[in-house]
Amino acid sequence: MPKDNFQTLKGFRDFLPPEAAARQEVFAKIRTVFEQYGFLPLETPALEYKEILSGKYGKEGEKLMYSFADQGDREVAMRYDLTVPLARVVAQYQNELALPFKRYQIAPVWRADRPQKGRYREFTQCDIDVVGSASIFADADVIACLNGALLSLGIKDMVVRINNRKFLDGLMRAAGISQKKTADAIRILDKLEKIGEKGVREELAFSGINTKQRQALFEFLGNSFEDTKDFVANFEDIEGAGELAELTEILLDMGVKNYEVDPTLARGLDYYTGTIFEFVLPDAAEYGSVAGGGRYDNLIGKFAGKPIPAVGGSIGIDRLMAALEELELIKYDVVSDVLVCNLEENLSEKYLKVVQTLRGAGIKTDFYYEPGKLDKQLKYADKKNINFAVIIGADELKKGEAVVKNLQTGKQEKVKEKDLVKKLKPG
Amino acid sequence: MPKDNFQTLKGFRDFLPPEAAARQEVFAKIRTVFEQYGFLPLETPALEYKEILSGKYGKEGEKLMYSFADQGDREVAMRYDLTVPLARVVAQYQNELALPFKRYQIAPVWRADRPQKGRYREFTQCDIDVVGSASIFADADVIACLNGALLSLGIKDMVVRINNRKFLDGLMRAAGISQKKTADAIRILDKLEKIGEKGVREELAFSGINTKQRQALFEFLGNSFEDTKDFVANFEDIEGAGELAELTEILLDMGVKNYEVDPTLARGLDYYTGTIFEFVLPDAAEYGSVAGGGRYDNLIGKFAGKPIPAVGGSIGIDRLMAALEELELIKYDVVSDVLVCNLEENLSEKYLKVVQTLRGAGIKTDFYYEPGKLDKQLKYADKKNINFAVIIGADELKKGEAVVKNLQTGKQEKVKEKDLVKKLKPG
Repeated sequence: MPKDNFQTLKGFRDFLPPEAAARQEVFAKIRTVFEQYGFLPLETPALEYKEILSGKYGKEGEKLMYSFADQGDREVAMRYDLTVPLARVVAQYQNELALPFKRYQIAPVWRADRPQKGRYREFTQCDIDVVGSASIFADADVIACLNGALLSLGIKDMVVRINNRKFLDGLMRAAGISQKKTADAIRILDKLEKIGEKGVREELAFSGINTKQRQALFEFLGNSFEDTKDFVANFEDIEGAGELAELTEILLDMGVKNYEVDPTLARGLDYYTGTIFEFVLPDAAEYGSVAGGGRYDNLIGKFAGKPIPAVGGSIGIDRLMAALEELELIKYDVVSDVLVCNLEENLSEKYLKVVQTLRGAGIKTDFYYEPGKLDKQLKYADKKNINFAVIIGADELKKGEAVVKNLQTGKQEKVKEKDLVKKLKPG
Repeated sequence: MPKDNFQTLKGFRDFLPPEAAARQEVFAKIRTVFEQYGFLPLETPALEYKEILSGKYGKEGEKLMYSFADQGDREVAMRYDLTVPLARVVAQYQNELALPFKRYQIAPVWRADRPQKGRYREFTQCDIDVVGSASIFADADVIACLNGALLSLGIKDMVVRINNRKFLDGLMRAAGISQKKTADAIRILDKLEKIGEKGVREELAFSGINTKQRQALFEFLGNSFEDTKDFVANFEDIEGAGELAELTEILLDMGVKNYEVDPTLARGLDYYTGTIFEFVLPDAAEYGSVAGGGRYDNLIGKFAGKPIPAVGGSIGIDRLMAALEELELIKYDVVSDVLVCNLEENLSEKYLKVVQTLRGAGIKTDFYYEPGKLDKQLKYADKKNINFAVIIGADELKKGEAVVKNLQTGKQEKVKEKDLVKKLKPG
């Protein structure tokens, strides 16, 4: 087989150590906040019966699903998102699970989408969901948790745009748009940022929404409201406005001040039934929303055989990583702390003792296996972005010392062997 | 679709929160030690070109591989182990990677094996490998690292059985068994624990190894040696004995004393070329080896187009989890710290403030969304194995206090609101 064939599939990626380490750090921070908010981890298989996933993602999704017949001729499909497996889990274990069930899952999903910048066929989702509560506190908890997770990554400036599907329905109704045309109108409205107001007006007209209705709708949508009182005063007659106002008050009680009520926020998915939200980073706006979600009270019931309300949200880790890089909140470089150099074969017992001491103190320590020239070893440390080299020759050994070379500054100093841990311990 | 169909595929598992949390804790500890030893994370895709995986796992493996044609009619296969993807990565990025390349990967792999107790079609591997060093220090580093990872889980009694394929070859030669028959003989010897000495002798006879050769072989294999000096004295003439002796000395220098040279250790895989090893837990011996590996100097070269030596090992997480449970080193129960109860609707602002304070202090805190009866809320906390309930009514509010109920002992006490974090912070 020619060497050229040793590559990843189109749309799939390897994460070499610098990227993989940065991703893990991000996952760990997100996971910590998810758990502080009382969300518990769940793992589901990469493969499910195709029947479970089929018909849940629309015609387009069906085409993008990786599915095949397994060795036992079962029709199986690779995980397409984390929400449908959650619904299956709730149905399968409904007698065991305490409701509300608050779970998080961080796992790859697969979609045979056309690969393009920032879009991959394998990508990781970070989802939290509250299943089994219709309370608006659950909506607020999900938003506050995602907000906390993003803040934990060092993001300073961030806005949560919030809206409510019932309220959006209410606005449509108030603008004279019929129930039947509402789903279409919401789908069109969702393109506002992409195609602008003019584009949206054109598409609305094309889908049979008349001039007067369009005019009325855009009057309603004209402003976003940061102040809850203004907001309620403006819209108190419209269904869902009360719920939206309540949500904003609870968010304030939970310390989330960076929200913005945005009546134009629509979100694409059909299954939302109440609160919808999206996180954007004004300083890295070109990456679009880095997280989003909403309430979906009818989806889980399709699996469980009885109505079970739910609300959830998801962090899009690929966009987020790109935005974090842009904001210089992430570095893809230093991944190990120390290289203990191997200069003289007969000193290996000493080297290994030092290695063992450093590792025992939690310091990420590499040992250069082949005794040899220092130059080569320092070059290796440099290529691996190791911070410090510990150099011990016969002279140092006699004095109970080591030379510690800072590989970023090039400076080196003599350190007593007993002080090595203190010197090298990061943080 | 009938409700009965909402289930996982045979051989696949969900991990509900208690199991998922326990697994994550184990992964985190293992990862920490891997990194202390200078191993860096790598992520590779779940899908690879089938061509890359084909012909690497023997006839049997080929049958167990999940493979299919994707939407673009490419023949693709799901990750079958972590070693072949590593070899592909080394070949693909050989100009970028600093050798020796020390990487770890913790990821699921898929094999359509017949499911049985302890054997699944989706299971997680935890691998470390050193690619690009022929040094015996690399062998020792891998063994010491896996040893450290297992010790970090609280395992007290553990034995690393070590042997060397060159040495095993040498023994075969010394027993008069030809090179041609050696691979078969090693495969048969690998069954020693399963079928006993009598069974092995029978199978050896059947494969054409005569009485005298069998007799000689079992004389050599008669003892295991904990003392390096005894060992070398016994076998110094046999090839590979020196290497094995050197390994044991380096292991001692690295603080690994719990090894046992076992000339009967064979390991099944064909591709080992030097050191081989296996970790067993005498207190949970029925779970077999919980980790193992060895040196394989010829595999990577098949991909990279030039010889690249390598040594690695793997922790079998399913067996390990079962053994940890047996040894009572793992608990599948408590997963959250606190439930803040929601008794009175008009106190929600206070409740949310407490929730926010606790979460801010890193305490895993749940808030009961629907205001209502305490009984129901405590039952929920119990089902979720939450440790403490924080109860605040109008009385407590006035006094700036909260009732803290320990849900394991049933005891409750009044705590000043400002002391709640100190009281509830775990550890």
